[in-house]
Amino acid sequence: MTAQTQILAQIKQADTIIIHRHQRPDPDAIGSQMGLAELIRTSFPEKTVYTVGKQAPSMAWMGEMDQISDDVFQRALVIVTDTANEPRVDDQRYIEGRTLVKIDHHPNDEPYGDYSWVDTTVSSSSELIYDFYQEFSDELTLSDAGAADLYAGIVGDTGRFLYASDTATMAAVSGLMKFDFDWNKINQSMDTISPEAAKVSGYVYEHMTLTDSGFNYIILTNEILDSFDLGDFGTSFIVPLMGKINVAKAWAVFEQQDEGFYRVRLRARNIPINGIAKRHGGGGHPLASGAIAQNDEEVQEIIKEADQLLKEHANG
Amino acid sequence: MTAQTQILAQIKQADTIIIHRHQRPDPDAIGSQMGLAELIRTSFPEKTVYTVGKQAPSMAWMGEMDQISDDVFQRALVIVTDTANEPRVDDQRYIEGRTLVKIDHHPNDEPYGDYSWVDTTVSSSSELIYDFYQEFSDELTLSDAGAADLYAGIVGDTGRFLYASDTATMAAVSGLMKFDFDWNKINQSMDTISPEAAKVSGYVYEHMTLTDSGFNYIILTNEILDSFDLGDFGTSFIVPLMGKINVAKAWAVFEQQDEGFYRVRLRARNIPINGIAKRHGGGGHPLASGAIAQNDEEVQEIIKEADQLLKEHANG
Repeated sequence: MTAQTQILAQIKQADTIIIHRHQRPDPDAIGSQMGLAELIRTSFPEKTVYTVGKQAPSMAWMGEMDQISDDVFQRALVIVTDTANEPRVDDQRYIEGRTLVKIDHHPNDEPYGDYSWVDTTVSSSSELIYDFYQEFSDELTLSDAGAADLYAGIVGDTGRFLYASDTATMAAVSGLMKFDFDWNKINQSMDTISPEAAKVSGYVYEHMTLTDSGFNYIILTNEILDSFDLGDFGTSFIVPLMGKINVAKAWAVFEQQDEGFYRVRLRARNIPINGIAKRHGGGGHPLASGAIAQNDEEVQEIIKEADQLLKEHANG
Repeated sequence: MTAQTQILAQIKQADTIIIHRHQRPDPDAIGSQMGLAELIRTSFPEKTVYTVGKQAPSMAWMGEMDQISDDVFQRALVIVTDTANEPRVDDQRYIEGRTLVKIDHHPNDEPYGDYSWVDTTVSSSSELIYDFYQEFSDELTLSDAGAADLYAGIVGDTGRFLYASDTATMAAVSGLMKFDFDWNKINQSMDTISPEAAKVSGYVYEHMTLTDSGFNYIILTNEILDSFDLGDFGTSFIVPLMGKINVAKAWAVFEQQDEGFYRVRLRARNIPINGIAKRHGGGGHPLASGAIAQNDEEVQEIIKEADQLLKEHANG
């Protein structure tokens, strides 16, 4: 019996299903969560399905999170999507459920759940949910809204098919686009920035530092960030800007936090750079990782280490 | 007999085939031209296939253009891809061929050719070539290099699936990605800019003017452009930057030419703006058109007209 078959059996048995995803959600977290919720609601209208976690204002169009009391968990099937490890699950009451299911596409370094379906070969957890729907398409029904959620999730995790996509991803997207939803609007909403974010982009392009070795970085202090009025827009749009430079082999954004330390986002085109993240209180994927720099000195250390790493690769 | 069947019959009859595309080629022009050439070469190794037109340095990776003498045309089947009208055909000797075929996805306002296959419902001419291969897949063979050409063409004409894509486009891309080529590399090469272009991007983001009506424009005089060293990189990367602003409903880049006049690129999200282009010596698609402004006064006129148009739409 495959994991998928077990999970479908669990869904069929349950009257109440609560779906979680990771904290600080990206479109794939929300897309897989809401897409799965839509899939279950449409296929089994008699079941009660909740989606929980902190509401993300920028992704409110994908659906609202539910507020539920603790006692609902006791008789519920809990499914967590797109979340590699338990500390990152948004709404830690997930552990109170009757049965726990993990559905994810990240490396399964920290397994959890009574049932677990992890496939690192797919682009996104949203693609996994689509595969689940396809595999049991004689029993399951997907709504247009659910298709829109899954499409947005795949677009989010692939940088709109820039990377991590393959023939299966595109076949899934082709299948999703048979549904009736406005993908142009989704693409536009995920591709555009606010006028103020455009000003920040201008600042970043004019102040980024590109080393001879191909490390492109920018340090954004509180003073700099406070000189702009980004509001709720966030700063995640800055990282892709750094990678736009054709000669950049790796790039980083050092963003100072209110507490004074720096959040570091590290990216690379081909050369695994997560070793540096691990040495500096972080981790992640080989080409996309995060770290913490306690102060300006540690910022400079990370820059030096990245520069050194790229030099070593260039020499051999 | 469909146009496709007629075209395949013509290809089978011909010993020599010359493939043209439009001047100032974009990736879809080159992709459909080279992809079709690859398709014919791989399927019919005994035939001689030439691709002509001015070599585009930035797209040299998609293949070299051939230099051929005038007499080759007399006995050749000439196929022109992705070119709406005859004046735009690159290498005007196309008319000297024995038989002329048009394959295109632009509106067929100015038909030409002995045989013509025009389909405006597809994303790109490269998608059409893929459809041609699919329809006759029992007789035709596509190489990995040909698949790479067609993929690049589709990516180019859709802004990497940002617009103009549908379920059929994605199915075609899924089919192309079954071939062995480095789509990550193609995506990266089409998504990145030079360090100097990044500086220009910074300038553009910091100096763009956004009207209350949602018209976002920038005027790039020779003086401004000369202050950067773009080299051969071109300026086409600037237009998409303008559309990145979420509240922009239409946008324009006014780029002064050596002769003093301005080349105007006009874009819109939903509101047809090509009427303005037509009034100012240009034309094009409803949401993507070009015009000429003879001087600063005409630049200001165009800005005023665009602002007025957006205001009228806002008022209903």
